[in-house]
Amino acid sequence: MATLQDLGVSAAINILSAFAFLLAFALLRIQPINDRVYFPKWYISGGRSNPRSSGNFVGKFVNLNVKTYLTFLNWMPQALRMSETEIINHAGLDSAVFLRIYTLGLKMFLPVTIVALLILIPVNVSSGTLFFLRKELVVSDIDKLSISNVPPKSLRFFVHIGLEYMFTIWICFLLYKEYDNIALMRLHFLASQRRRAEQFTVVVRNVPHISGHSVSDSVDGFFQTNHPDHYIGHQAVYNANRFAKFVRKRDRFQNWLDYYRLKFQRNPDKRPTMKTGCLGLWGRKVDAIEYYDQHIKELDKLMTLERQKIIKDPKSILPVAFLSFNSRWGASVCAQTQQSKNPTLWLTDWAPEPRDIYWRNLAIPFVSLTVRKLIITLSVFALVFFYMIPIAFVQSLANLDGLERVAPFLRPVIELKFIKSFLQGFLPGLALKIFLYILPTVLMIMSKIEGYIALSTLERKTAAKYYYFMLVNVFLGSIITGTAFEQLHAFLHQSPTQIPRTIGVSIPMKATFFMTYIMVDGWAGIAGEILRLKPLVIYHLKNVFIVKTERDRGKAMDPGSVDYPETLPSLQLYFLLGIVYAVVTPILLPFILVFFAFAYLVYRHQIINVYNQQYESAAAFWPQVHSRIIASLIISQLLLLGLLSTKKAARSTPLLVLLPILTFAFHKYCKNRFEPAFRKYPVEEAMAKDVLEKTTEPDLNIKAYLADSYLHPILRSFEVEEEELVELETVQVRVDKLETHHVASQTRSESSSPSPPHDVHHQHSPPHHVHQHQPSPPHYNDYPLPPEYYYHHTSPPHYNYQYQDQP
Amino acid sequence: MATLQDLGVSAAINILSAFAFLLAFALLRIQPINDRVYFPKWYISGGRSNPRSSGNFVGKFVNLNVKTYLTFLNWMPQALRMSETEIINHAGLDSAVFLRIYTLGLKMFLPVTIVALLILIPVNVSSGTLFFLRKELVVSDIDKLSISNVPPKSLRFFVHIGLEYMFTIWICFLLYKEYDNIALMRLHFLASQRRRAEQFTVVVRNVPHISGHSVSDSVDGFFQTNHPDHYIGHQAVYNANRFAKFVRKRDRFQNWLDYYRLKFQRNPDKRPTMKTGCLGLWGRKVDAIEYYDQHIKELDKLMTLERQKIIKDPKSILPVAFLSFNSRWGASVCAQTQQSKNPTLWLTDWAPEPRDIYWRNLAIPFVSLTVRKLIITLSVFALVFFYMIPIAFVQSLANLDGLERVAPFLRPVIELKFIKSFLQGFLPGLALKIFLYILPTVLMIMSKIEGYIALSTLERKTAAKYYYFMLVNVFLGSIITGTAFEQLHAFLHQSPTQIPRTIGVSIPMKATFFMTYIMVDGWAGIAGEILRLKPLVIYHLKNVFIVKTERDRGKAMDPGSVDYPETLPSLQLYFLLGIVYAVVTPILLPFILVFFAFAYLVYRHQIINVYNQQYESAAAFWPQVHSRIIASLIISQLLLLGLLSTKKAARSTPLLVLLPILTFAFHKYCKNRFEPAFRKYPVEEAMAKDVLEKTTEPDLNIKAYLADSYLHPILRSFEVEEEELVELETVQVRVDKLETHHVASQTRSESSSPSPPHDVHHQHSPPHHVHQHQPSPPHYNDYPLPPEYYYHHTSPPHYNYQYQDQP
Repeated sequence: MATLQDLGVSAAINILSAFAFLLAFALLRIQPINDRVYFPKWYISGGRSNPRSSGNFVGKFVNLNVKTYLTFLNWMPQALRMSETEIINHAGLDSAVFLRIYTLGLKMFLPVTIVALLILIPVNVSSGTLFFLRKELVVSDIDKLSISNVPPKSLRFFVHIGLEYMFTIWICFLLYKEYDNIALMRLHFLASQRRRAEQFTVVVRNVPHISGHSVSDSVDGFFQTNHPDHYIGHQAVYNANRFAKFVRKRDRFQNWLDYYRLKFQRNPDKRPTMKTGCLGLWGRKVDAIEYYDQHIKELDKLMTLERQKIIKDPKSILPVAFLSFNSRWGASVCAQTQQSKNPTLWLTDWAPEPRDIYWRNLAIPFVSLTVRKLIITLSVFALVFFYMIPIAFVQSLANLDGLERVAPFLRPVIELKFIKSFLQGFLPGLALKIFLYILPTVLMIMSKIEGYIALSTLERKTAAKYYYFMLVNVFLGSIITGTAFEQLHAFLHQSPTQIPRTIGVSIPMKATFFMTYIMVDGWAGIAGEILRLKPLVIYHLKNVFIVKTERDRGKAMDPGSVDYPETLPSLQLYFLLGIVYAVVTPILLPFILVFFAFAYLVYRHQIINVYNQQYESAAAFWPQVHSRIIASLIISQLLLLGLLSTKKAARSTPLLVLLPILTFAFHKYCKNRFEPAFRKYPVEEAMAKDVLEKTTEPDLNIKAYLADSYLHPILRSFEVEEEELVELETVQVRVDKLETHHVASQTRSESSSPSPPHDVHHQHSPPHHVHQHQPSPPHYNDYPLPPEYYYHHTSPPHYNYQYQDQP
Repeated sequence: MATLQDLGVSAAINILSAFAFLLAFALLRIQPINDRVYFPKWYISGGRSNPRSSGNFVGKFVNLNVKTYLTFLNWMPQALRMSETEIINHAGLDSAVFLRIYTLGLKMFLPVTIVALLILIPVNVSSGTLFFLRKELVVSDIDKLSISNVPPKSLRFFVHIGLEYMFTIWICFLLYKEYDNIALMRLHFLASQRRRAEQFTVVVRNVPHISGHSVSDSVDGFFQTNHPDHYIGHQAVYNANRFAKFVRKRDRFQNWLDYYRLKFQRNPDKRPTMKTGCLGLWGRKVDAIEYYDQHIKELDKLMTLERQKIIKDPKSILPVAFLSFNSRWGASVCAQTQQSKNPTLWLTDWAPEPRDIYWRNLAIPFVSLTVRKLIITLSVFALVFFYMIPIAFVQSLANLDGLERVAPFLRPVIELKFIKSFLQGFLPGLALKIFLYILPTVLMIMSKIEGYIALSTLERKTAAKYYYFMLVNVFLGSIITGTAFEQLHAFLHQSPTQIPRTIGVSIPMKATFFMTYIMVDGWAGIAGEILRLKPLVIYHLKNVFIVKTERDRGKAMDPGSVDYPETLPSLQLYFLLGIVYAVVTPILLPFILVFFAFAYLVYRHQIINVYNQQYESAAAFWPQVHSRIIASLIISQLLLLGLLSTKKAARSTPLLVLLPILTFAFHKYCKNRFEPAFRKYPVEEAMAKDVLEKTTEPDLNIKAYLADSYLHPILRSFEVEEEELVELETVQVRVDKLETHHVASQTRSESSSPSPPHDVHHQHSPPHHVHQHQPSPPHYNDYPLPPEYYYHHTSPPHYNYQYQDQP
């Protein structure tokens, strides 16, 4: 067990490292050469195009103004200056709501901390002798401030129970207010948005194959029949995954070509050579520029063929389509209703916004989704429960006696007081952190295999998986296996009433571990976040090796978005720790408070200056955050129940039984009351916006507005000339077919409803339309956002957006 | 423990009583005097109006044809003669699908029984010595045929596991086919139905109160805005619960009045008298006819006042309405979409058919529903788990040693061999049966408190509650507490892996108990069902005391509908027993088979000849039946897993772990694939029917068709003359209001979409319309079904439909 001294050493290390990071950040951020690393958002939003610098040459790279060095913490007030509305306009609702989680944490834990410290510490300390649960466990000084110090059967437990009730009520009150607030913000945000393609678009999956009809024909036929007054056309989805693979390969080659050309330019005497084998380590030696040049040419040919194949081959049209409607009402209705007798066909749902779509998953056959989900569920279960073994092993090192027994030769080193403290205070947290580092990537891949078609959904699902992992491995795992891994097996064979007891008893003993964890993961981690060491290094490397033009530099500085799949679950874990320890060991609460305050400042700064969100989900993640906090409440109540039942507090414990039930009822209520606002777009809203738009813009051509808004981004930008030839015939054929179709549907619609004859708008001949609307060759500036938003991948980001350059 | 002999006695008793019932039925059913008890369905459907009888006077009451007495089982082939399509036409889809559950049971268990008996009995018997789990438990001969007889670590367990896999696959295959079939039948049934009001109607609940607007105005305003092309009006719902109470009271008095008048008629010398106190036992003696006459007159006055109040007072309009749409498409869309920003307001759902509505619950304020649900959930939990105590006590009597110890004076009686067998074989089942008798009523009241607005939903929810009760108390309760109630406490403190073991071990030992149970509850119970002793007695009593006219007689014979809340869970319990014991003690299977075959015949006869369904839910209960059978499969797999793990079959047991996961995956698949067909009405279907109707009946006035289809039935039938005066002014006022409203909505609709100007159809002035469409005074014959279908209550049925008689 870690003593107070160990904790002190750990705190010192972490606070020092946090300060070192902050200092480094303060120095680096004011250097003009780093301006694009620390303020990319301003470059992207157009607020800045050149680093602020003093005139001379050196001043372009190094900040020579001594005054700015003196106020190295002045980014903090700067970060606080922007109002919430400004943040919404600047960075979107997702970011603003993400910051609200931190303020919620502060609002929640500040009063809780004050009350808990003022009331519980005196109650616990004055309870006299410390009760030893098991003699062999060494109890540290921290435990004297915790509930462990209260003797069994004491009446003082009424105080703890009373506070648990108070805290629960306070937290539920805050949660309700927050949910209400955020639901309103979301609705307001959606209502105030300008016209967007996704408001008129519905995605339909699992279009059945009708023999003799192409997918496009069946889609048109079905929706013209069943939504005659609102359906105006659809945008077919092409299976361009193979094409995308070529594009990625070509980009990689192009990068290398650029690199060697630059090398040759700087050193024209010697043509660069390379080896063709693996990693350039062996194989035939060839001229690098020629080699890549030739390969790129070959790829170009392949891509041309592939492209024609995609466009000509009806089999490359996937049984998925984006349906366009002439009103938000029509789209909202179609998304919410069941279309077909067979409920697994013609599945409609709201379309994600175009930049939010994960195109690759649209090609997954719908039938395999159930199987995929089952397999991934089992894998996540296995991952969550068997990942425990290595962690438990590493943590058992923290029990130094065990380590000495295993490796007696280490004894002289370990016995050094400082090293001992360091190992005990630092190692367990660090080991966990390393384990957790590769995890989000694995979980994201798993979510992708599950087949969600929106990036926002993928990130939410990954966050959920990560949370389960943290709950079982970081929280429960640390509590139960901390002293011995053998406990795990025993634990699996305990009765349901015994489990909260076993965990509840260990909880106060683990307070020091979690304090260390908060310092390592929370404090130092957040300080590392603001320093952005990795992007800094990568940016400067790219700047030296690849960047030729200003556009290349823009791509090299790409900051990405806030890493929700990782930060949300961590945050939820801090909520859990705070809520669980509020009554048990309140001395942990200040650590959490410091984390929330510090993280709030840092993320506010990052959202204003650095991150550029890839998509806007209008706070769709909030219901998850809410339910996790509720789950934390229930966990804390059950564990307190278990803890108290071992304290033989028979008179006071039954009072607690009602609390989880009430909390759960509160959760159900909130779910009913607020969650639909995050999942559905009500008919009332849709109609109101439709009516408003009809009065303000009576002659809007919605069909033209929607044209190709959901075209696979990779098909937009290539070989403009040749395909116009290829396409023209295809289109002609389709139009002929369509007219017969149209006549049929018209006669029907005339007899069924006197709506105006609607033009059948046929959008599935993709690049044709693009070029009508965008006559200039596709270019960076055609996109409202950098092109990488249109194409997503798992390989490292710095080689991937080059395909846009190619003619 | 019951021996084979006990079982024999029990079987003999039950078979004898079943035969006695059948014989009595055979004799009674051919008496013309009982014709209306045993063939009421034919009277209701108009197939018969007089009992078939031989000419003379005696022949009207007693069957004198000797030949018919000889073939006393000839109802069985008669019951089988009708085809399924005929049954659907004759009794509805619900009944036909209900019968399919029995055939499913037969199809499922016939091959299982044959395979299990042929393979498992030899395997078990030849396993040599019987393994005694605990020495103190006496093991009966039945156990020698069961899995208990296989020694631990035997390789023979592979046979059991193999069969469990085979049975699971076979059952899942049948379930899939059946679900598919029934979903198709349902869709076909719905598609082939003639035009019905509920297809065009949507119920909206929780209409918000907008100050200065009546409920009707807000409803019209909201839906004219948000569904302008489809909404044509609504039917307001009145809070007539108080009025209904008066009606019930008046009916009661009228019954008594009729009774005393009849008495006076028969015995004109003496005017009947009665006492005014409780139950007529004490109090002032008065002339009965005068007393009731006077009370009825007073009530009539009160009712007139109440009625005027309901119609005039805007507060009696509930924040609920039935919305009428001009197409099925519009209704389907409105029912499936979220209307308002606040997801707890304007909640739309498909309207149940008018005769399916439980009117009283429409008055429940929506906000209280969450609280009601929470309270009822807790109550059901308490009921399920604390009901166990008395049952366990009664069952402990089956342990006669205990009884003798408690009451030693009973020893001489108990020691008689026959009585001992009787007590051991018969008592436990009977005790349970009595306990279970009052339960459905209690559960139905609970479901009503929960606030469901459709009778079909109420019955389904009651069935679900009853199933949980049976699962915990009949199945688990009998297995665990059978030998000692003390086991319960120990059981609650066992680990999750231990629970299936504890139950699994006891399962083979309880086979005899369940065989007895199947005989008492199944065989004898079903024979009792066909005898209809209670309705027989009640009918003849009514015939003597109340019936004056042919119409009265029609009401007295009312057969009611199949008691789904009770029969469905029992059926599901038999499935559970069959599936659990198929591998463990296959000798139980023939008992189940006999039950299914016998019950199938009986219910087929009853559905053809007796029951008259109150509502038609188009097999909405099927998904529940399906999931219960799946749950049974998973329970049986877990219990077998537990049983085998105590048998130390370490090599074979792990093979079983995969099975529950696969079964659950199958369930998820079926749920996705079929369940929406039972919950939603797809847009495709709605549109197809709309289009068809528009071509066949182009000038249908749907507004007139829907007028007052959802008017509270109690308001339809009273005081025709006076209210026309009362109403006329009200209607006038409303029409004035409406016209301004109408103009506003028209200008809007003109600008928004070129649909034909739709008349705002305002249906909330109720009896006014009724009388336009039904100029004759309301009468029994105006209703497609007897009037009691329009009004539902919990008091005994035989006094309740008299209110229709009153002028």
